[in-house]
Amino acid sequence: MSVKTPNVIKELSAEKGYKAWLQYNEITDESLKAEYSSYFASLSVTEDSPILNAAVEELTLAANAMLGKDMTIYNYFTDDATIILGTYQTIDVEEYGLSADEVKNLNDEGYVIKSVNQADTKKLVLVGKTDKGVLYAAFQLLRFMQTSNSIDGLHHVEQPKNQFRMMNQWDNMDGSIERGYSGNSIFYDENGFTGDLTRIKDYARLLSSVGINAISINNVNVWEVETNLITSKFLPEVQQIADIFRAYGVQTFLSINFASPIQIGGLATADPLDAGVQKWWAEKVEEIYKYIPDFGGFVVKADSEHRPGPFFYDRDHADGANMLAEALAPFNGVVFWRCFVYNCLQDWRDRSTDRARAAFDHFKPLDGKFLDNVVLQIKNGPMDFQVREPISPLIGSMEKTNQVMEFQVAQEYTGQQKDLCFLVPQWKEYLKFDTHAKGEGTTVDSIVNGSVYDFKYSGITAVSNIGNDANWTGNTLAQANLFGYGRLIWNPDATSEDIADDWVRLTFGDDKNVVETVKGMLLDSWHIYENYNAPLGVGWMINQHHHYGPNIDGYEYDVWGTYHFSDRDGMGVDRTMETGTGYTEQYFSPNKEIYNSLETCPDELLLFFHHVPYTYELKSGKTVIQHIYDTHFLGFEQVEGLITRWNSLEGKMDDYRFNNVKERLHMQLKNAREWRDQINTYFYRKSGVPDAKNRTIY
Amino acid sequence: MSVKTPNVIKELSAEKGYKAWLQYNEITDESLKAEYSSYFASLSVTEDSPILNAAVEELTLAANAMLGKDMTIYNYFTDDATIILGTYQTIDVEEYGLSADEVKNLNDEGYVIKSVNQADTKKLVLVGKTDKGVLYAAFQLLRFMQTSNSIDGLHHVEQPKNQFRMMNQWDNMDGSIERGYSGNSIFYDENGFTGDLTRIKDYARLLSSVGINAISINNVNVWEVETNLITSKFLPEVQQIADIFRAYGVQTFLSINFASPIQIGGLATADPLDAGVQKWWAEKVEEIYKYIPDFGGFVVKADSEHRPGPFFYDRDHADGANMLAEALAPFNGVVFWRCFVYNCLQDWRDRSTDRARAAFDHFKPLDGKFLDNVVLQIKNGPMDFQVREPISPLIGSMEKTNQVMEFQVAQEYTGQQKDLCFLVPQWKEYLKFDTHAKGEGTTVDSIVNGSVYDFKYSGITAVSNIGNDANWTGNTLAQANLFGYGRLIWNPDATSEDIADDWVRLTFGDDKNVVETVKGMLLDSWHIYENYNAPLGVGWMINQHHHYGPNIDGYEYDVWGTYHFSDRDGMGVDRTMETGTGYTEQYFSPNKEIYNSLETCPDELLLFFHHVPYTYELKSGKTVIQHIYDTHFLGFEQVEGLITRWNSLEGKMDDYRFNNVKERLHMQLKNAREWRDQINTYFYRKSGVPDAKNRTIY
Repeated sequence: MSVKTPNVIKELSAEKGYKAWLQYNEITDESLKAEYSSYFASLSVTEDSPILNAAVEELTLAANAMLGKDMTIYNYFTDDATIILGTYQTIDVEEYGLSADEVKNLNDEGYVIKSVNQADTKKLVLVGKTDKGVLYAAFQLLRFMQTSNSIDGLHHVEQPKNQFRMMNQWDNMDGSIERGYSGNSIFYDENGFTGDLTRIKDYARLLSSVGINAISINNVNVWEVETNLITSKFLPEVQQIADIFRAYGVQTFLSINFASPIQIGGLATADPLDAGVQKWWAEKVEEIYKYIPDFGGFVVKADSEHRPGPFFYDRDHADGANMLAEALAPFNGVVFWRCFVYNCLQDWRDRSTDRARAAFDHFKPLDGKFLDNVVLQIKNGPMDFQVREPISPLIGSMEKTNQVMEFQVAQEYTGQQKDLCFLVPQWKEYLKFDTHAKGEGTTVDSIVNGSVYDFKYSGITAVSNIGNDANWTGNTLAQANLFGYGRLIWNPDATSEDIADDWVRLTFGDDKNVVETVKGMLLDSWHIYENYNAPLGVGWMINQHHHYGPNIDGYEYDVWGTYHFSDRDGMGVDRTMETGTGYTEQYFSPNKEIYNSLETCPDELLLFFHHVPYTYELKSGKTVIQHIYDTHFLGFEQVEGLITRWNSLEGKMDDYRFNNVKERLHMQLKNAREWRDQINTYFYRKSGVPDAKNRTIY
Repeated sequence: MSVKTPNVIKELSAEKGYKAWLQYNEITDESLKAEYSSYFASLSVTEDSPILNAAVEELTLAANAMLGKDMTIYNYFTDDATIILGTYQTIDVEEYGLSADEVKNLNDEGYVIKSVNQADTKKLVLVGKTDKGVLYAAFQLLRFMQTSNSIDGLHHVEQPKNQFRMMNQWDNMDGSIERGYSGNSIFYDENGFTGDLTRIKDYARLLSSVGINAISINNVNVWEVETNLITSKFLPEVQQIADIFRAYGVQTFLSINFASPIQIGGLATADPLDAGVQKWWAEKVEEIYKYIPDFGGFVVKADSEHRPGPFFYDRDHADGANMLAEALAPFNGVVFWRCFVYNCLQDWRDRSTDRARAAFDHFKPLDGKFLDNVVLQIKNGPMDFQVREPISPLIGSMEKTNQVMEFQVAQEYTGQQKDLCFLVPQWKEYLKFDTHAKGEGTTVDSIVNGSVYDFKYSGITAVSNIGNDANWTGNTLAQANLFGYGRLIWNPDATSEDIADDWVRLTFGDDKNVVETVKGMLLDSWHIYENYNAPLGVGWMINQHHHYGPNIDGYEYDVWGTYHFSDRDGMGVDRTMETGTGYTEQYFSPNKEIYNSLETCPDELLLFFHHVPYTYELKSGKTVIQHIYDTHFLGFEQVEGLITRWNSLEGKMDDYRFNNVKERLHMQLKNAREWRDQINTYFYRKSGVPDAKNRTIY
């Protein structure tokens, strides 16, 4: 038996792409196979729940595929089984050398995996605080096995460090995906649902296997058709999807249109302080929960990039969010209110307005005004998912307001899943950044996990990178970002190296050459991408709208607030307190002073914070202009190196995945060449400073 | 009775916009009305033909609307009538003081209008060489009357100076118009025909009234659906349209897909030298002529911007064009083969390739190889309808090959019918340019009218600027370009001033203030537009794809071959023979030397031909950079002036047209402001040279 292949995989050759990190390859090492097989004789599941059933199904599937074993399943507790599966209340855990407290003291999604040698029988106990813990235990056990670890003597205790571990789909009901780079939506097509529940279930498996526990299933830009997702027209199908995700421990959310009361409610207003509007939302929420009793709540993009919101009624974000939160509160629903709010009609001539300031300026004054089931959703940086930005200063700045951080797994600005860019090292830097909000050591992860300010709701969310391409993510190596996102936010202390190592082994197997080569490529890739892109944190030198490829002045004279201010003498954005936009003021000390001062500002963010001459000497000892030339020549050469490294793996994996990545690396090389030459030429023409190494600049 | 208002005019208020220059307003001057009325008692038409019927219909309509007269119509020759209408063979012209030779010696579209006082009866004789001449005479007579000229003692002899006076619709069958700025197609909708024959007839009236005698009714980019226009699926409806145009003396053409034999013929090839392909086209042409016996022929964009063509089969343009010409020859059909052929995948790094050279390089070597029913269709400039380009050096360079020149009435690069840009002065410059092809005085108009090289087919064609907006052209003042195009190519010796004067009087009436103001606005507008655009002939500093608004580097690092090469020291494209691309070599002496030399090259084309420092002093005495600043500040102020001028006309015309233009002038002001500030800022940042007048540059 193999994992069921949905229709979407037209060619069987793509199957390994489709299976991603849940390959469940047959174990070829005879001694390991014997060890594993001794545990996979029979399975006792102590309760009946959709989530436990999913765990059993996954283990059964894997036993069959990896070991050729067909386990006997007992739907009740029995010590006769070799694998015992259940929550801690249903198993006498002390029988297996565990203390009840060890499990009881975990959070609701924690678990313990223990292998036991009793007499001559080997046993595996997978015990969760709740059934979700059991499912996570099952996936972890299978990861151990897929990465060729012995499971003898196992005693593995885990719990997630973040409460919400969420995925935002930016899928539209016409089937398109905003910022989607791997085909169309797996959820929607032609203004309805695809009905491909097999594919949705497999997505749920992928998400659950890395610990994702929440999903919003439609784009934060909610257009006309999607506004109807919260009506009886579409809720039965949303319910079907929620049922699938629920079985994998994933709670379903919807993005809503703030103007819904007008658009679908027939009201004349969407004013959050209007009693009729409040009633409409209360009834609407009640209706939704009839379909989906554990519905998560709403994700809201309001008063942002032309989307409707409370501003239209002279209300503020708290008014808007609280109105929805009141409606959701009786059902324990939550409002994720996005803080991506800025003036998107800025006059480029206006040097006083600074888009980077906007989220903080809008939201910080509202601290304390939000209800406790409102969560502010804050992008990691103050701009928009550039390859290099400082942390958003809003993170940690609001003590009385729940916050989650938003990442973008979709590579909108980082190569669009043509170019390789493994983002875990970038996310890790954000999570381990010390905000100093409550003194030294107030790292971002300690804020977003809710521990610093004791948020009721906390965690991390991200924009998904999957579509209906056979391999989900376009570039097969982009699967590593989906995997890595889940694994990292489960445990931000995990290293990028370990996450990459795991992913490669799970995806391509244990061949040392493959593991070291691919892992090295992944770990180098973010810096390579940064090398050939907009330099030193300045960002945005991209083609408008689609955002792929260089266009140095692409946004320079436009309304979006994204400028680099290059002239013949220098470049960069002065965001200092003394002579600039004062953005640096939004940080806690000493970050404020570090960023504000040219002397202490780190090189990689120099042009984000300062306008300097091309001849300014970096801490690296190079001038800005020579740094630009050097990194851009280097970045291109590094992509050539990626191709050489990848080509060395020919024959070591299936053709589909080998060729898929190879093709994309060649696209990346073309892209890197354009970046190199356009950036170098642009700045050479402008600065007149020749390359110290006299390389070709056009 | 008023001109029938089609459904498209939702508001009657737009009716004056719809009627364009065929207002036929009631004559309010009593003495003129009496004079005209004395002629408009009865009408004798000597033959029965659709074209003569159209002439009668137009005169009847106008008599009714302008004079309140219902003429008696005699469908035979009778001297009893006050107006006598017919070809010279059917009227004893000497009876009316004309010699038969005077008409006979005219070309086929010539005519004479003569008013005669016989005893106490006034008579008007409209006599044509053919029935088309009669129709043109009718429109000219009505123009005299609409512009308040006495028609007593009239003896007006005219004939067009160009043979083909053509219009190219760039309409797609989905209803869109490539480079359309005034709504959707009047011909097509939803991959079929609109069926709005009333509107098409009114378009035919507009075209015929200004002497257009040929039209191609679909986009030169022929996509999948449009490829089927030459099949039985669509030919019956093409026939309906051709019937309408025929009655107004306009011959119908179709743009075809060179790959038709494959796409709709089921053949494996479209190779022009393949006998099967030749046979397929021969049969296809025969089929078309069954529907449209006077079908004009094909317009072909081949091997250009990714359209299929003979290159794919290692054949040349002559092979491709001649194959189609052979098929059309038995029916006197003609192939218009477009010369807009260049490498649209140029590497911007490559300074040796020059798009400006392309048409000449491709076609000049083929002189003499084309059949005599092939006409090369050559854009006026070597690039693509920029606000300022030199003449295409291909014009006049091929003695043995029929040539027509292509203008663009649609304002793709000249304000898109938001900004005012009356193009007649520009076209006039091209037509009166002295190519020196056969020595001094070999003006462009003498080449394209066929007289220099005795072309079998010759003339001028242009991209249309109309759509289904109520007023046809978006900006009501853009109607002047459609009118002016027709009038100018009928007689290139007409002055821009006279054409503008006529148009304003016909459109808005005789109010002196209105006439002088609008005429002045029209005549100034091209230079105003040029002032705030890309400077000194360099062109192309525009947003990609849609081509509206500034983007100085928009095409600078792209594949389209359109660059300005600005650096911190200077700008412009070196097209000289010594150090540049050698493009200047393509001109005849002395133009070759004039353009090639920095000393003699005219200022307005300086950057088209030369790369110079910003501090280079123009013949005007200004430096290039100061010229840039001055013209851009001036251009913006001039648009403010246009608004003031237009506003002075409030109350002097209907609200629809007044407001329509006013709105667009405000769009133009916004556009001019962006051009001014982006251009000035860009070049200030790059050059570092301050404005001598210290005005605000951002």
